[in-house]
Amino acid sequence: MTSLTSSGGTAAQQSTRPGGGSPASPTTSAAVRWRPLPLGAASITGGFWACRQDANADAAVPAGRDRLESAGNLQNLRVAAGVAEGTAVGPVFADSDVYKWLEAAAWEYGRRPTEDLLRMQREVTALVAQAQADDGYLDSVVQVRYGRDGRYQDLPWSHEHYCAGHLMQAAVAQARCTGDRALLDVAVRVADHLVATFGEDLRHDVDGHPVVEMGLVELFRETGDRRYLDLARYFVDARGHGLIESYGEEPTYFSDRVPVREATTVEGHAVRAVYLAAGAADVAAELGDKELLAALETQFDHMMATKTYLTGGLGARWEGESFGDEYELPPDRAYAETCAAIGGVQWAWRMLLATGDPKYADAAERMLFNGFLAGVSLAGDEYFYVNPLQLRGGAHPHGNRSPGHGRRGWFDCACCPPNIMRTFASLAGYLASSDSQGVQVHQFATGELAARVGAGEVRVAVETDYPWEGIVRVRVEETGPEAWTLSLRVPGWASGATVVVQGAESAATPGEYTQVTRAWAAGDVVEVRLPLQVRVADAHSRIDAVRGCVALERGPLVYTVEQADQPDGVAVDDLRLVVGADVAASHDPDLLTGVTVLTTTGRVGSGDVQPAWPYSSATSVDTGGADGEEVPVVALPYYVWANRGVGAMRVWLPRA
Amino acid sequence: MTSLTSSGGTAAQQSTRPGGGSPASPTTSAAVRWRPLPLGAASITGGFWACRQDANADAAVPAGRDRLESAGNLQNLRVAAGVAEGTAVGPVFADSDVYKWLEAAAWEYGRRPTEDLLRMQREVTALVAQAQADDGYLDSVVQVRYGRDGRYQDLPWSHEHYCAGHLMQAAVAQARCTGDRALLDVAVRVADHLVATFGEDLRHDVDGHPVVEMGLVELFRETGDRRYLDLARYFVDARGHGLIESYGEEPTYFSDRVPVREATTVEGHAVRAVYLAAGAADVAAELGDKELLAALETQFDHMMATKTYLTGGLGARWEGESFGDEYELPPDRAYAETCAAIGGVQWAWRMLLATGDPKYADAAERMLFNGFLAGVSLAGDEYFYVNPLQLRGGAHPHGNRSPGHGRRGWFDCACCPPNIMRTFASLAGYLASSDSQGVQVHQFATGELAARVGAGEVRVAVETDYPWEGIVRVRVEETGPEAWTLSLRVPGWASGATVVVQGAESAATPGEYTQVTRAWAAGDVVEVRLPLQVRVADAHSRIDAVRGCVALERGPLVYTVEQADQPDGVAVDDLRLVVGADVAASHDPDLLTGVTVLTTTGRVGSGDVQPAWPYSSATSVDTGGADGEEVPVVALPYYVWANRGVGAMRVWLPRA
Repeated sequence: MTSLTSSGGTAAQQSTRPGGGSPASPTTSAAVRWRPLPLGAASITGGFWACRQDANADAAVPAGRDRLESAGNLQNLRVAAGVAEGTAVGPVFADSDVYKWLEAAAWEYGRRPTEDLLRMQREVTALVAQAQADDGYLDSVVQVRYGRDGRYQDLPWSHEHYCAGHLMQAAVAQARCTGDRALLDVAVRVADHLVATFGEDLRHDVDGHPVVEMGLVELFRETGDRRYLDLARYFVDARGHGLIESYGEEPTYFSDRVPVREATTVEGHAVRAVYLAAGAADVAAELGDKELLAALETQFDHMMATKTYLTGGLGARWEGESFGDEYELPPDRAYAETCAAIGGVQWAWRMLLATGDPKYADAAERMLFNGFLAGVSLAGDEYFYVNPLQLRGGAHPHGNRSPGHGRRGWFDCACCPPNIMRTFASLAGYLASSDSQGVQVHQFATGELAARVGAGEVRVAVETDYPWEGIVRVRVEETGPEAWTLSLRVPGWASGATVVVQGAESAATPGEYTQVTRAWAAGDVVEVRLPLQVRVADAHSRIDAVRGCVALERGPLVYTVEQADQPDGVAVDDLRLVVGADVAASHDPDLLTGVTVLTTTGRVGSGDVQPAWPYSSATSVDTGGADGEEVPVVALPYYVWANRGVGAMRVWLPRA
Repeated sequence: MTSLTSSGGTAAQQSTRPGGGSPASPTTSAAVRWRPLPLGAASITGGFWACRQDANADAAVPAGRDRLESAGNLQNLRVAAGVAEGTAVGPVFADSDVYKWLEAAAWEYGRRPTEDLLRMQREVTALVAQAQADDGYLDSVVQVRYGRDGRYQDLPWSHEHYCAGHLMQAAVAQARCTGDRALLDVAVRVADHLVATFGEDLRHDVDGHPVVEMGLVELFRETGDRRYLDLARYFVDARGHGLIESYGEEPTYFSDRVPVREATTVEGHAVRAVYLAAGAADVAAELGDKELLAALETQFDHMMATKTYLTGGLGARWEGESFGDEYELPPDRAYAETCAAIGGVQWAWRMLLATGDPKYADAAERMLFNGFLAGVSLAGDEYFYVNPLQLRGGAHPHGNRSPGHGRRGWFDCACCPPNIMRTFASLAGYLASSDSQGVQVHQFATGELAARVGAGEVRVAVETDYPWEGIVRVRVEETGPEAWTLSLRVPGWASGATVVVQGAESAATPGEYTQVTRAWAAGDVVEVRLPLQVRVADAHSRIDAVRGCVALERGPLVYTVEQADQPDGVAVDDLRLVVGADVAASHDPDLLTGVTVLTTTGRVGSGDVQPAWPYSSATSVDTGGADGEEVPVVALPYYVWANRGVGAMRVWLPRA
């Protein structure tokens, strides 16, 4: 099902589009180093991610449809369409949940088409089309709640462009994956309404929440209508010049303090910041805007160097759901919104295509396996909004987003659940890319990859038990006679990696692509071997919040210690890790859908003693030395935490 | 000016009231161990606190009057009174700022009466009286914004009881300090309106923000009207039974998750929590409610043991301005609202009177000298809302409460500034107490204390350079022939303290009152000598956020390291302290109105090196050992930070 010509109803269109298999598919004239594989050309057929994709398809997507009904999102559209009576319910951006779900359903149909998926999409799409105003405007909440005069009256908060952006992304996905044009027609009319309203010679304004930039560029890519790209460029450049002021938050919150091309870091609301950056990367690619791309590289680098959690989580503060200062990365009050990790992956993917630098694929891998994946239950249908790296035992959770409640089926602000759904459904799009020279494999999953390279059409099969095992085997299935290059990412953490080509093993450099160029024959095998020795990570001295602590990693996975796995009487809150002790790794296929468990040695401190005043003379206090009883420590991958109830959890453990 | 019969216009009333010199003055039948000194019986005549009180009187109180005008608070009252046209501006609790300022002006008039103070009070009081509705209801914002039908319609957020509570506190202060009854009349009518509306047999409801409990009890104490005490009791006991639900925040935020007498800790919004606890302590005292008092003791103990900053700051989270979990005490994102420290002092004072336990006076001292005092500039008229224990260098501050902006003259939510004003103005009320046996000195300041004890009227003079010097000299100025007991608090930190009675020195136990009972003669002197050696504090192992760090303290003062005082090239962000190195203390009378400066030795780390990824192998990373260049470290008292611009600051420094 994953060759270039066998997928869904879209085969006829594939040859005319440079690549529709990723949610960001640059045009042939875009200034990118690499291009996504065409739609259907990448598939995940087994192993780790297939299991997660199936849970998403079987549990999350159908349940999401029901949630849109029960939470009132669909009813809002009916009221706007005039086919039902009532008021608008939910947040002002309620429509965006519908669009994200539609996008998920579209990609999912491309992945594994079913009649049900098509029927649900068409039903919801018809409702969206019905709700659209005669002149193309569409935002059911604004239409119902504020009427025609209320349009675009409160852009910092109204999320009208935000909803439009998600609509465009969904519409493009639907057109590509199902061949249906109904949602695309709606999106084009919305985009035309924006084009007629905003811009350099029209109304100067931007939405408080970016995403329309990505949507407009993708709509340009799908339709070829240059006005959409120009408007996206306008929105990117209009920020940072004081358009948003005095709206209850400082401009920083809205990514409006500094012009995008002058910014040297990410700041403010994390999801807004990374969505904007991802959209700017799309604009830079299509316009060949090197200055903008360079600014985004600087920002991405600074984010990774100073504002990213070990899990790839983004956003240190609950207040404003925002990035903190440099090195402000508290594990307990980490916000690390699931949507921010998703936005981080989207940004990283666009930077990877533009630059060909594997650091972006490394970053995306970290985000996907940890900060993103922890956001969803193994069953697929419960979600974390907030993803901390520590939870203390026994605390009463406050607030409906508190991770202390465990994952939840939905939220009043339900941005994360359908965002997760569309990410899973489109995940194969992030696996690999191609250029005229060959194929680049960025993420490792069992499946098939096909591309048209200079040497003709090629197809490879990937087999791996990654992330549990470090061997990734790539077998050439189809190739022409001419030479082409197979590039395989060697993650930055993979010290000692090797590559085996037709039985000959040689060293591979971590943090680079190992490239094999040859005239291939079907059946040729290249194997990359990534050593999965457990790594004990320390943090930069300025990350005050985890001073004196270490964390365990294995391959792309960050590990964590959960109360459920420790011996009776050993409180995670008081556990210290003996650095240098042996760490054993053993795979348990029956635990939590299969995980590799780490076992090592720790000591328990005396934290359960509660003095009347917790500050005392430094000469008398236990400062975390080698005292305390020796105990076994069991660590599991971070992403599985809280799948067996919620208890104390820590990624960072003090050194014994 | 500080004898029992010489103060202000209130001498005639003093003999009939058990003690009006503190903002909480229990009745003669209250179940308290000690009683506040009568109005005017305690004064601060020089030294540390007199300097701060003068700044408050000279700069803050007059400026506050102007701010109430420019921010619109007074205009709201005029509009409600029908003497001006317009809408209500500012937050729904705008009236409370007026009342807190009126309370400050009243206490200030009691401290140092001027015609200006009286005129301003009468003018504003007349406006308040004019705004009051015919039936006694008063809340100018609700009156103007929502009309008669809008009364008490949104109690979780409307702050109507909150405003009423502050009105009652101000009215009692005014009656006591000026003899004027005008504001008291207004307050009585408001209280009667509450009594006629809320209670067990009437409407069951509570305000989202406590303070009315303290106000009602004090009004009861002033008027003798028992209904006010009963209503306060009702409000205290009504919480925690689900009255406040589904109002955008969980009940925890409103101190409504657990009934007060069942709670074992403080949680939720910090100011709300401690105001409620302080009001509950008033109720417990007047009703002799031992169960309630015991619950409050448990809560206070748990707060001090697990949720209080070294500075006495309360409230770990910006989100919800709330207490965090046990031991969740980040120095950088500490909220530690100035108002919470004030509420902490109010609660501690009530617990001290009720129990006679010096731990409450210790806590109040820590809060006053650090968490409270840092909230105001040395000039007296600029304020911090938020009081962190760390600020990183170079970060752009976000949000108008961000300490990175430096102290500000006022806030859109201006609860802190007038709260600071009333606390300074009434500070002498917290110095000492009395019982039939004698006088207890809790806080040390140069001044005079007078009381009526079993042995008759007594008067002592206190002389001290505290907190710079540890000697507190108490001279008996007036006494009868019979014996009585002079009790002097020996702070818990004061190891090696001694007491000298008529030249004879003996050991005094820290954390207790040293008691001297004798038949005194005028001229007798008792001296307590508190060693002010610098203390190097460590934190409990569960306080993750400052693991591996130490802090400097001297006497009641917490010290901090500010960028302005360090040598060129030494970044506070990278500074480590050499524990065990000599620490020199020297007083500089010209620096920042006079401070004792600490100088010691540190090392600078390599934190300015910014790797592309801040997490690396634990075997290769600098873990804060004895490396780095040796440098001098200069530390100043925490409360003076940011009086010379805002730069990097840390209370907790990593150990070198």
